[in-house]
Amino acid sequence: MKIKSVLWYLLGCVLVCSHVSAGPFDKGRWLDLTHDFSEETVYWPTSETFKKTTVFEGHNEAGYYYSAYNISTAEHGGTHIDAPIHFFEGRHTVDQIPIDQLIGVGVVIRVDDQARSDRNYQFSVEDIKAWERQHGRLPEHCILLIDTGSSQYWPDKKAYMGTDQRGDEGVKQLRFPGIHPKAAQFLVGERKIKAVGIDTPSLDYGGSRRYQTHQILFEHNIPGFENVANVSQLPETGFTVIALPMKIRGGSGGPLRIVAFVPKD
Amino acid sequence: MKIKSVLWYLLGCVLVCSHVSAGPFDKGRWLDLTHDFSEETVYWPTSETFKKTTVFEGHNEAGYYYSAYNISTAEHGGTHIDAPIHFFEGRHTVDQIPIDQLIGVGVVIRVDDQARSDRNYQFSVEDIKAWERQHGRLPEHCILLIDTGSSQYWPDKKAYMGTDQRGDEGVKQLRFPGIHPKAAQFLVGERKIKAVGIDTPSLDYGGSRRYQTHQILFEHNIPGFENVANVSQLPETGFTVIALPMKIRGGSGGPLRIVAFVPKD
Ligand SMILES: [Zn+2]
Ligand SMILES: [Zn+2]
Repeated sequence: MKIKSVLWYLLGCVLVCSHVSAGPFDKGRWLDLTHDFSEETVYWPTSETFKKTTVFEGHNEAGYYYSAYNISTAEHGGTHIDAPIHFFEGRHTVDQIPIDQLIGVGVVIRVDDQARSDRNYQFSVEDIKAWERQHGRLPEHCILLIDTGSSQYWPDKKAYMGTDQRGDEGVKQLRFPGIHPKAAQFLVGERKIKAVGIDTPSLDYGGSRRYQTHQILFEHNIPGFENVANVSQLPETGFTVIALPMKIRGGSGGPLRIVAFVPKD
Repeated sequence: MKIKSVLWYLLGCVLVCSHVSAGPFDKGRWLDLTHDFSEETVYWPTSETFKKTTVFEGHNEAGYYYSAYNISTAEHGGTHIDAPIHFFEGRHTVDQIPIDQLIGVGVVIRVDDQARSDRNYQFSVEDIKAWERQHGRLPEHCILLIDTGSSQYWPDKKAYMGTDQRGDEGVKQLRFPGIHPKAAQFLVGERKIKAVGIDTPSLDYGGSRRYQTHQILFEHNIPGFENVANVSQLPETGFTVIALPMKIRGGSGGPLRIVAFVPKD
């Protein structure tokens, strides 16, 4: 290797470095992992749904256009966060979750094949191990997103979660994929993750009645993202997740805006 | 320069590069620029305020802890975003604002001295030019945050915005700093910014009745962040802003979670 080519390489490296420091999100694309809030938004059968009422919309007396609305919603509906307090006393409320836990390296594990043949499929320890055989150990402090292929059914409640019935009768008919409590136990015991997200209404599968996965994760202050959108459009690794919830004092969860940055190859 | 030292330098450079690619937010600190939502949250005198009602809170029959709440709010209150449609027909609703416009290099211009002696101070073209004499031209595609020193008064409505009266009577007594329409005109005509934020209830100052700054910025699809917190804790340059609003279909604005990453020196 000649000194001249070493210096050229060096120059290239310096340019790459200075480019990176110009801003973390220069080369790549943003993907919105959030369903919007409207009358169509999917909620738990027993939850209050999203409402938007008009305060004003149109040209006013002063001669300019103006629009404003009021909104109301259950904390848990649409694309939202579960704060650990939702299922575990003394753990983080939504405003107490450290920002650092909501932003980080993202990983997708796909179980859409499994969930296609069984709409009550439970994401398993074996699903994690199969991913690790291909990609190596789950990176420490990652945000794990589970792709069950369910986003495609949104907002058709029957296809998405098995029922469009409201109330307790609806709850009995829920059918959608979730995370098996043993996988939750593996994640808190054998791996280190910041948070976990899924493209269905709940971390626990539709047939769950004790919500053990919620309890296991939340005891360890690991928040959950539910009804996440567009997970199937993400690569399996190499992207950044940013998930910022509404800052409700003492809230058990709330509306979440979650996006991903996928760098250009 | 010997070939050996060149190679050492090269190795160091590669290490720096690979470190950066490990994740954009490794070395530094997060700052939350968001006031939380509670009964204390400051709203416009004529707006609906924030309400949180309890669905359940405590140990249930099944023997585990559970908590959940419903919420309601005006779009425009607390730390929130103004979508361009709020004051300009045909411009972006809150769900239409490109993610790229909500995330970027941040800049703070401080006018806390000016605002201390005049609580109806209007941020001026001269304030921008004074900043530029010190730091160089406002970077293209930055997110501009204005520090009027008002966060310190939150949530004392009288100190923060001049009144704790509700209704039209309250509107008449509003007193807080804002952005002069000429400065808004300068920003859309002479500079390129993604968005602008301020630590007061409105982009226009408390005495405004025509909200011209809103109209000028929104005609150009530049969204505004209002009641931003902790701006005075930020450096003037060198940080990243992430501002993600609740995704309300057709919304004129809404609750905003805004944070900043300040790299370690
Ligand atoms: Zn939930
Ligand atoms: Zn507003």
